[in-house]
Amino acid sequence: MNFTIQNVLIATNDDYATVDVQVIDGTIAAIAPDLDVIGTAVDGSNKLLLPGFVNAHTHSSEMWQRGIMSIFPLELWLAELYDFAPLDLEKVYLSALGTAVETLLSGGTSVVDHLVLTPGKELETIATAVRAYREVGIRAFIAPLIQDESLSAGIPSGETEQNHEPYFRSTTATLEIIEEAVKQFHRPEEGVSILVAPTGIQLCSDGLFKGCIELSDRYNLCRHSHLLETKAQEKLAQEKYGCTAVEHLQRIGYLGDRTSLAHCVWLNDHDITILAQTQCTVVHNPLSNLRLGSGIAPILKYIKSGVNVTFGCDGASSNDSQDLLEAIKMGSILHNITDSDYQNWITPKKAVEMASLGGAKGLNIADQIGSLTVGKQADLVMYDLTNLSLLPRTDPIGLLVLGRPTNVVHSAWINGKQIVSKNQINTINIDNLRQELFNRSQWETKRKSQTVAQIETHYRQVMDL
Amino acid sequence: MNFTIQNVLIATNDDYATVDVQVIDGTIAAIAPDLDVIGTAVDGSNKLLLPGFVNAHTHSSEMWQRGIMSIFPLELWLAELYDFAPLDLEKVYLSALGTAVETLLSGGTSVVDHLVLTPGKELETIATAVRAYREVGIRAFIAPLIQDESLSAGIPSGETEQNHEPYFRSTTATLEIIEEAVKQFHRPEEGVSILVAPTGIQLCSDGLFKGCIELSDRYNLCRHSHLLETKAQEKLAQEKYGCTAVEHLQRIGYLGDRTSLAHCVWLNDHDITILAQTQCTVVHNPLSNLRLGSGIAPILKYIKSGVNVTFGCDGASSNDSQDLLEAIKMGSILHNITDSDYQNWITPKKAVEMASLGGAKGLNIADQIGSLTVGKQADLVMYDLTNLSLLPRTDPIGLLVLGRPTNVVHSAWINGKQIVSKNQINTINIDNLRQELFNRSQWETKRKSQTVAQIETHYRQVMDL
Repeated sequence: MNFTIQNVLIATNDDYATVDVQVIDGTIAAIAPDLDVIGTAVDGSNKLLLPGFVNAHTHSSEMWQRGIMSIFPLELWLAELYDFAPLDLEKVYLSALGTAVETLLSGGTSVVDHLVLTPGKELETIATAVRAYREVGIRAFIAPLIQDESLSAGIPSGETEQNHEPYFRSTTATLEIIEEAVKQFHRPEEGVSILVAPTGIQLCSDGLFKGCIELSDRYNLCRHSHLLETKAQEKLAQEKYGCTAVEHLQRIGYLGDRTSLAHCVWLNDHDITILAQTQCTVVHNPLSNLRLGSGIAPILKYIKSGVNVTFGCDGASSNDSQDLLEAIKMGSILHNITDSDYQNWITPKKAVEMASLGGAKGLNIADQIGSLTVGKQADLVMYDLTNLSLLPRTDPIGLLVLGRPTNVVHSAWINGKQIVSKNQINTINIDNLRQELFNRSQWETKRKSQTVAQIETHYRQVMDL
Repeated sequence: MNFTIQNVLIATNDDYATVDVQVIDGTIAAIAPDLDVIGTAVDGSNKLLLPGFVNAHTHSSEMWQRGIMSIFPLELWLAELYDFAPLDLEKVYLSALGTAVETLLSGGTSVVDHLVLTPGKELETIATAVRAYREVGIRAFIAPLIQDESLSAGIPSGETEQNHEPYFRSTTATLEIIEEAVKQFHRPEEGVSILVAPTGIQLCSDGLFKGCIELSDRYNLCRHSHLLETKAQEKLAQEKYGCTAVEHLQRIGYLGDRTSLAHCVWLNDHDITILAQTQCTVVHNPLSNLRLGSGIAPILKYIKSGVNVTFGCDGASSNDSQDLLEAIKMGSILHNITDSDYQNWITPKKAVEMASLGGAKGLNIADQIGSLTVGKQADLVMYDLTNLSLLPRTDPIGLLVLGRPTNVVHSAWINGKQIVSKNQINTINIDNLRQELFNRSQWETKRKSQTVAQIETHYRQVMDL
């Protein structure tokens, strides 16, 4: 499957250049003007070529509840989410397909799926997601979401005494499932990786974290968690550890250059220094942070401190889409209101780098993907600059990031394999997917979460509402 | 052009209903299940019908610079914008078409164009925009942007003494142009209205405001201005008047139920009370407020105080698109971080009402458009609920507002005339528009604004940067 893209626009240090790009055996073999055509010739004229982005944090099965979730903060939202979570593996399959498709059609070539596991069918859930991502052909990083404390333990106790149900599955059993998943599905060279992914300090014991660290070291796995998404979690960390969550995670050895942390809204300056020192990656999810009222993550501070930052859509129930370009746009412009000096603001070019190379760094594969570099794998996206939403012709990356591009992904390749052609997915039938999503759902407005009814009073009390 | 939409989903108070909608002579004649078919039968199955939204603040010609503007705050951004503003009337025409098309394809049926006038060709500029909007068939509210002070007067002086060039056109001459525009083009019954639109306190004398008030009263015109978009303008108002901008505008009689004010970011609580008392409309432009780092407008406070609020895209150089659904989404979820009590957050249904009825109120025509009400004009938008971005089926309005709908506008009618069918514009040739936008532009990255070079040092000084 060798090919040569001809006359395509690429970004240079401070401008653009028109070049040819040769791809041989899935690898970028040459980038220069007027190259010989190796393999198929691909017309790149009036198109922009960028490295594929990483959708660095999502939960695919949330697609089933997008649009219908109550307008709640995280803790109540989560209670509602779990009350209506899909348990059916066919739904898991379809929402993984949908997540992959929306990611691909908005410039992503990799997805980190912090995958919610169906109780009792944990390995089957993972197998199902693996199957979906392999079918679509997106580079998949499956991070099975694990915890060993029950949901109510994620809300601070405040002055009150709280008793929490024990979690239905033991820490050991959970770790065994993850190890088995690694053995069965972790095939980075085939585009499927398993991550250890304790959901976060709010619902995980130190035992679970330590087991994950051990698995991560033994099998060379990346680590992925939520971190301090809400003010409630900041309070909870103080109750639980008597220090910040970041200090605690550093103490137990969870932080490192293979660790990516979603949200990171409620960190103090010392916490930020720790993230920089330990070379963690922050995954910024601007849409869900706004939707759930979590706050604005101090992204400009992270950048100033040298912390690697990339973007995620987060699950589609808190976003409520999987459009990476939307996440990149909002994750850039949102921060202009947090620093009056515009010289610190994120430029479109910087945003593109964060979304591609930043994402690769967070997965510890910046030597393999994330930039248009000879020798790297060909995870490429080619945008159609004659699309109405990218006209008139101005600064192509400026308009791609700051505009609202619609149907602009002309082609996408992953490891040199073409997955998108003329804005259509080659690998699966989208009409079938639409039909299945339609058939397995119904329009509804009225549903009441029993768990929310149980916890709301306590939540309002402890949060001073 | 009578028609009956059959079996379409509409929102009821707290749910949805499937109904038929009869439109006779441009007016909604009946809404109920199982109506007789009058005129053409339109299949509404698996579709959602909403009143058209109002893009309540934009500047159409900014489309020519979208994507390329530096990452600047308003004052410097404006200097760069004007250094490269298109002077060619054909460009004015094309960007008005583009603005109308993007508005229509994101649920809008009305547009308020705070239209930048080409110096020396002011009436021709207005005539050109009128021609474009009439061709497309969108309901147009043209607000010719006027000022009588030169650009540098819009930046606070601070400790320094500043001399400003006099503006090139007298206040009287400017007002004469507006009166002539009213005589030539103000035809509300044909879908084209002229507004008086002094740009704002930062660049307008009291004489200009008073002239506009007089024209507005004499010809029954709406009033439209920017208001306190930036902190710099807040400072400037204190320098200029010794009170807040709102207090001053109330004193001179500019505020009232026909006055809509774009941005309103830097108002204090007393100012908000004045807006409520005078029944002004706030036009919220969340994207440009973020892009330019202006701040977060206190929208939840406005709502609580009874101020009418609606949404605008603002010009495409500060957004950088004209997608109303994006503005509505961001203008809803952005405020969840400003109030920890989620019971005050904007729901999707509320957002839809703000975008439709709120927009109509701001234009003083809430008795004519803005809701699905028998007797109102048929400004209708029908969304395709089988589109991938609106699946699976959950809460249709929830997903429309909170998701990232793409290609979802199946049909749109304005005053009963069908302008969009099957997601295609009926009235103009989009391929021609794309070709013209392409031909009259070029990809570029390097341009330097001379005016920015002149004013940046002073700006940084007075803003303590």
